[in-house]
Amino acid sequence: MKDLAEAEALITAMGQDARAAAVELAQAGAERKYAALIGAAYEIRKRVPEIIAANEKDMEFGRAKGLSDAMLDRLRLDDDRLRGIEDGLRAVAEQADPVGQVISEWDRPTGLHIKRVRTPIGVVGVIYESRPNVTADAGALALKAGNAVILRGGSESLHSSQAIHACMVEGLRQAKLPEKAIQLVPTRDREAVSAMLGAQGLIDVIIPRGGKGLVGLVQREARVPVFAHLEGICHVYVDRDADPEKARRVVLNAKTRRTGICGAAECLLIDWQFYTKHGAAIIEDLLAAGVEVRADGELAKLPGTVKAEADDFGREFLDSIIATKLVDGVDEAIAHIRRYGSQHTESILTQNDATADRFFNSLDSAILMRNASTQFADGGEFGMGAEIGIATGKMHARGPVGAEQLTTFKYLVTGDGTIRD
Amino acid sequence: MKDLAEAEALITAMGQDARAAAVELAQAGAERKYAALIGAAYEIRKRVPEIIAANEKDMEFGRAKGLSDAMLDRLRLDDDRLRGIEDGLRAVAEQADPVGQVISEWDRPTGLHIKRVRTPIGVVGVIYESRPNVTADAGALALKAGNAVILRGGSESLHSSQAIHACMVEGLRQAKLPEKAIQLVPTRDREAVSAMLGAQGLIDVIIPRGGKGLVGLVQREARVPVFAHLEGICHVYVDRDADPEKARRVVLNAKTRRTGICGAAECLLIDWQFYTKHGAAIIEDLLAAGVEVRADGELAKLPGTVKAEADDFGREFLDSIIATKLVDGVDEAIAHIRRYGSQHTESILTQNDATADRFFNSLDSAILMRNASTQFADGGEFGMGAEIGIATGKMHARGPVGAEQLTTFKYLVTGDGTIRD
Repeated sequence: MKDLAEAEALITAMGQDARAAAVELAQAGAERKYAALIGAAYEIRKRVPEIIAANEKDMEFGRAKGLSDAMLDRLRLDDDRLRGIEDGLRAVAEQADPVGQVISEWDRPTGLHIKRVRTPIGVVGVIYESRPNVTADAGALALKAGNAVILRGGSESLHSSQAIHACMVEGLRQAKLPEKAIQLVPTRDREAVSAMLGAQGLIDVIIPRGGKGLVGLVQREARVPVFAHLEGICHVYVDRDADPEKARRVVLNAKTRRTGICGAAECLLIDWQFYTKHGAAIIEDLLAAGVEVRADGELAKLPGTVKAEADDFGREFLDSIIATKLVDGVDEAIAHIRRYGSQHTESILTQNDATADRFFNSLDSAILMRNASTQFADGGEFGMGAEIGIATGKMHARGPVGAEQLTTFKYLVTGDGTIRD
Repeated sequence: MKDLAEAEALITAMGQDARAAAVELAQAGAERKYAALIGAAYEIRKRVPEIIAANEKDMEFGRAKGLSDAMLDRLRLDDDRLRGIEDGLRAVAEQADPVGQVISEWDRPTGLHIKRVRTPIGVVGVIYESRPNVTADAGALALKAGNAVILRGGSESLHSSQAIHACMVEGLRQAKLPEKAIQLVPTRDREAVSAMLGAQGLIDVIIPRGGKGLVGLVQREARVPVFAHLEGICHVYVDRDADPEKARRVVLNAKTRRTGICGAAECLLIDWQFYTKHGAAIIEDLLAAGVEVRADGELAKLPGTVKAEADDFGREFLDSIIATKLVDGVDEAIAHIRRYGSQHTESILTQNDATADRFFNSLDSAILMRNASTQFADGGEFGMGAEIGIATGKMHARGPVGAEQLTTFKYLVTGDGTIRD
């Protein structure tokens, strides 16, 4: 593909096919979508050697390109990881089908009966980086919500994604659903991404899955709505009325359980009264766990800590590093989070209900927690089933984006020859 | 104001004030918002002579500018219309406050309790044309949902809007809410509209109120999300299983009750079997009511009809004109509406449940009706209270946009020192 015009022609053709498939899908019953997902899971199992061979081609390409070990690891598929993909497909299949659910219904004095029912959004575009499993995860969730989907995977994982995509298409075929319901952009060219971002009227929403570079690009350039979060700069605030043991447990978990996920804590705010009374055990725990503690002011005097720079606050480390400072009560914590947070997830540790209410009411993050680890910010942990990502925008979808948030609604109004005065 | 840069500086300053006000508003209880609305209604009543004098200035300006009689009528305020504005403010005050409503809540096996609660969106921008009452209506609804609002009224109605706006601010002041919660752009310059459309990060959503020219401009140019409908090309389909008397009543009402509203029917599709069996009474009724019937094919042979041109289908007349044609059953009606509709409101007349289901499931308009007049497409008629407009997009808000749809949500998660394995 030589230029943007060619990419636009490709995406337009795919978009039109997707739109046509979406019309069929919107009317497909829950059973056929279920069958397609179970069929796809079965195909993954059947084709393990084929998928691993395709993945080996990508790994060779990646090694030749000089990808880092971490990136090669993300790219790699093996029997275990394929089992994970298969299980994921079955799990989405078993979730409740959101399409057609009656959100609310009521009667009017005019005799009209009004129902608000869930419907698919239409066509979803997913742009992702090296992990080939997103091909199955995102395809499955979009399908569950009755949407057609256009997948644009990372150029490094093209063969792996194509092999997985073939299984998804086979699932659709067996369930007599349109094969164009799940399409994979068949090229490595960057221009396809630009074409997707500009495909107003063909793609209804774009979901980027990947690093800050990709998400930032999508948020800046997209002419269609985007569900995403740029960063997860999650804060934990230890209030003066915190239970010290709970605080130690939660802070350690929030930072160290997994440091590379968007729900990992990046900043620890401690009320100075709490610190005066209970000391530095929380920070000692972090240091003992090998965390680099970048401390401001008084806390920088603690042995083992590093002095924080100004730009350590509001920074997403995604690593075994945390920024920390003392604050004067919940209001200063709120002000700090308003200034430096990314509206993803924040947690307060307190036994004081009024203080917790103030924290909950004054902040506008997608997820606010009390006495719980920020690592719970995840669709599975919320009981929503699989998620396609976490959104921090205020429009339409927020927090974990599962099948339900990939739907919209319409009103169905029934009368009996009813006219308006 | 000389150029866009000055307009941008103005809107940036207003946007920052709005953002600060929004933070305060989000925490204001329902009572203070109620008090502000009742206070504003009281001020309107108190200041009738003052508002009418301001309106007289606008009327003079409008006459000098050569505005049409219809436009002058839209601009005009009198005691009755001010009573309507006052009543509207009181009605919004009496509606349930959506902020803080728990949309759903559930427990997790981990011990976490999760609540999804309604929160304000933040800052709403409203761009409207000559009707000065929008100043009160839009300001009131945005406030009810806890949002700050930036109002940009038509240049012809500047003095009237300023006089009404002063009453809204007085209501805020009396309720000890930030006066910047409801701001009016203080200039007639067009550049302010462009600046609002580009105010990402300061304005969360733009709502245009006015004709197709304004709405089209906003939809094309806005860099922030838009709630709007470009056109209401509403269809009525008379199925072969329609009750002929109900069909006559509903079609006549859908077209003629008020022809200038977005819920007025613009196209009538009649199943040919119905037509063969029941004849042309529906069309004769329309002709007798003075409607210009632009008929296609067989129907054009009826005396009194005009032959339809191709572009009469998919056209919003907003006048005493209707396009009509015969179709072969519900599937042809669905195909026609998919091609020519604007996803606003469509109604099917049928006594056949399976046919109605097919119509409801196959179309993706914001509102679908059965045996009811499209003229019911209105927030008041839906029992939602006042509305700021009707949206046909699929993101976030659809159908009548009332206070509830001017909110978003967040998750509040409570544990007891709960950590993730």
